[in-house]
Amino acid sequence: MSLITAVDVLDVRFPTSLELDGSDAMNPDPDYSAAYVVLRTEDGAVGQGFAFTIGRGNDVQAAAIQALSPHLVGSPAPTTAAELGALSRRLIGDSQLRWLGPEKGVVHMAVGAVVNAAWDLAARAAGLPLWRFLAELTPEEIVSLVDFRYLTDVLTPDQALEILRAGQAGKAERIEKLLAEGYPAYTTSPGWLGYSDEKLTRLTREAVQDGFGMIKLKVGGNLDDDVRRMKLAREVVGPDYPIAVDANQRWDVADAVAWMQALAPYRPYWIEEPTSPDDVLGHRAIAEAIRPIKVATGEHVHNRVMFKQLLSAGAIDVLQLDAARVGGVNENLAILLLAAKFGVPVCPHAGGVGLCELVQHLAMFDYVAVSGSLDGRVIEWVDHLHEHFTDPAIVRDGRYRTPTTPGFSAEMKPATLHGFRYPDGPEWTELSR
Amino acid sequence: MSLITAVDVLDVRFPTSLELDGSDAMNPDPDYSAAYVVLRTEDGAVGQGFAFTIGRGNDVQAAAIQALSPHLVGSPAPTTAAELGALSRRLIGDSQLRWLGPEKGVVHMAVGAVVNAAWDLAARAAGLPLWRFLAELTPEEIVSLVDFRYLTDVLTPDQALEILRAGQAGKAERIEKLLAEGYPAYTTSPGWLGYSDEKLTRLTREAVQDGFGMIKLKVGGNLDDDVRRMKLAREVVGPDYPIAVDANQRWDVADAVAWMQALAPYRPYWIEEPTSPDDVLGHRAIAEAIRPIKVATGEHVHNRVMFKQLLSAGAIDVLQLDAARVGGVNENLAILLLAAKFGVPVCPHAGGVGLCELVQHLAMFDYVAVSGSLDGRVIEWVDHLHEHFTDPAIVRDGRYRTPTTPGFSAEMKPATLHGFRYPDGPEWTELSR
Repeated sequence: MSLITAVDVLDVRFPTSLELDGSDAMNPDPDYSAAYVVLRTEDGAVGQGFAFTIGRGNDVQAAAIQALSPHLVGSPAPTTAAELGALSRRLIGDSQLRWLGPEKGVVHMAVGAVVNAAWDLAARAAGLPLWRFLAELTPEEIVSLVDFRYLTDVLTPDQALEILRAGQAGKAERIEKLLAEGYPAYTTSPGWLGYSDEKLTRLTREAVQDGFGMIKLKVGGNLDDDVRRMKLAREVVGPDYPIAVDANQRWDVADAVAWMQALAPYRPYWIEEPTSPDDVLGHRAIAEAIRPIKVATGEHVHNRVMFKQLLSAGAIDVLQLDAARVGGVNENLAILLLAAKFGVPVCPHAGGVGLCELVQHLAMFDYVAVSGSLDGRVIEWVDHLHEHFTDPAIVRDGRYRTPTTPGFSAEMKPATLHGFRYPDGPEWTELSR
Repeated sequence: MSLITAVDVLDVRFPTSLELDGSDAMNPDPDYSAAYVVLRTEDGAVGQGFAFTIGRGNDVQAAAIQALSPHLVGSPAPTTAAELGALSRRLIGDSQLRWLGPEKGVVHMAVGAVVNAAWDLAARAAGLPLWRFLAELTPEEIVSLVDFRYLTDVLTPDQALEILRAGQAGKAERIEKLLAEGYPAYTTSPGWLGYSDEKLTRLTREAVQDGFGMIKLKVGGNLDDDVRRMKLAREVVGPDYPIAVDANQRWDVADAVAWMQALAPYRPYWIEEPTSPDDVLGHRAIAEAIRPIKVATGEHVHNRVMFKQLLSAGAIDVLQLDAARVGGVNENLAILLLAAKFGVPVCPHAGGVGLCELVQHLAMFDYVAVSGSLDGRVIEWVDHLHEHFTDPAIVRDGRYRTPTTPGFSAEMKPATLHGFRYPDGPEWTELSR
């Protein structure tokens, strides 16, 4: 049993706003950033995690992670399911920090970063990539990791156990299939709002050629532009290829319905974040008005209780789990179980910095041991910033290759942590000259 | 037109956990705290505001307020409705900080602190207490202050205008009545979980004698204890006096229903925070199961969109607005208008440090110019920490006395700001010896 001896917290930012990569109707100028945490132990082992932000406020996020360190330093590094469950409960249950959420916003994202770092450490200690470390836990161990508080009216521990026991059948075959074939991906790279029509059509064509099963376009800036862009993309891909669209919370309910009716002739597959992530009943109203177009959300859904609302209300057709928004792996296990209970496919949000690296493990675990299915399931892929990771996510022929390196793939390279440290890393001091 | 020249941010904490004042089922050891902000202008005017926290994390909250200062320093101090509306939109709309919410948690509370400080400044400049400054704005000005984004499916600007125009009738009479009689209060002081039965009965008796129209007991620790405490209080107050109970989010849906059925023979008036503030549909299920006991929530409801859910779903009978949780006065205007639209009474959450000082202005404005009613309306009162304010809230004969000093009553005394500064103020260095 090794003790945690230090919690290093770093403010790492990338000047992505210079390129308009990542530009959408609500986020015109993101500087993709990570409030990055390293757990160090007395035997020299390390675990990495981070909260993803888009620039300003990354220092506030880092301060929130730092505020959790009294719960960590001097405690044993968790390695078992029981210990990882206890850590998550201890962090979420801090009786004073809880007031700043509860279970939402900066403080909850800080819990997520630390919990994910602890899972990275534990998976490395076990010598397994995270998805496989999870897949080798028993159904009882998985259930012990989940906080069922506020969930029991729709999902009890016994019901979760039943889902997980059913997920054991065929597990070995699914692991083999995953290792051989990877997991389907879609790409958002063609569709950023800041791109020209020429760049949109070129990247769309490339996406199809590269084997992606779906592309996604950002919408919500200007209706005429969106209709034109959607029409262009539809012409490139042909009548049957799925095109998702993403409004990044731009609309009120009536706007969403009207806008999607205007896009409907070009058959969008899903509309993502049509309105505020808090507007559960608004999502339901939109979903009812625009069928058969699906409604998707999740990257800003702040915890399992909100996902419970969206699922119970029948407000979403696709659940977009995010690895760095909620309270880490443990809460995402709860969310995967909720989705399985309601039969809603999970298609994780990725992109940003490091999100592809993290979510692939969760989606693969879902396939192997929870839903057991790839139907309607696809992981977002954005080809940005992977070069900063020691174990980057890899997509080939439109599929995520299954990670095999031990851990959660969260580790950034030392040169990155040095160069992009904000505001004093050389990449930033260079820019400000 | 005077420019804002500085934004001072202070971490102020009170060691209230030493006394078990404020102890409840979820918050056993709060150190009531304020992340306190002072806006300074070139002509020497100042405006004060704060986010209320319960100890750890107050530094994170202060850092979030600091992150907003680039939007403030060098800008004109807002004095008109148009300028106060623009400031609120500018702060909430920060395209990078928004990611850390959106509109929730630490970053949104920081916006609230700053927006409230700007209102304090503007009301002082106008020579009016905030409630009256608001009451003298036209319906059109009030509507211009509100961000209707995500609300228009249930409340349009035109509908808001209609509510406010109706609220003009009899306004002068209500102002007179308020100045003469004050606003009804209830007290939570008898009911903290840490108090003995003897203290509970003594303080309950005193509350009735002091003229309070209701008391509130904390529940949710242990059912037998709660039944015994409720029975004791009921014996003291007699059969018809209202007793509210407050579970501080302790329960799942089924627990809440069962617990309230056990307390029902002693006729609780409302159950406050029976479960997670995010569990909209859970609140509705509880409300349907325990009628005629009312369901109340709000102190942790993070923005107007969540209140829209709770109201649209018919999940709450009482809306407990909080002055320092959401995005400040502007968002609370939206919340007052939503409550009026649905005919749900607003009974603000207070206590903590400084919350009584702030909410009295909002409730009084609601009475004067929005709902026009005191029916079923009452402001929480907790007699703690008022001595630290230069214009403290005053309750006499069970009623809040109407504030007449210009501003928002948010200003703490210099000796307090010095003495309780964390961690280096003398009150804290004394304790740590």
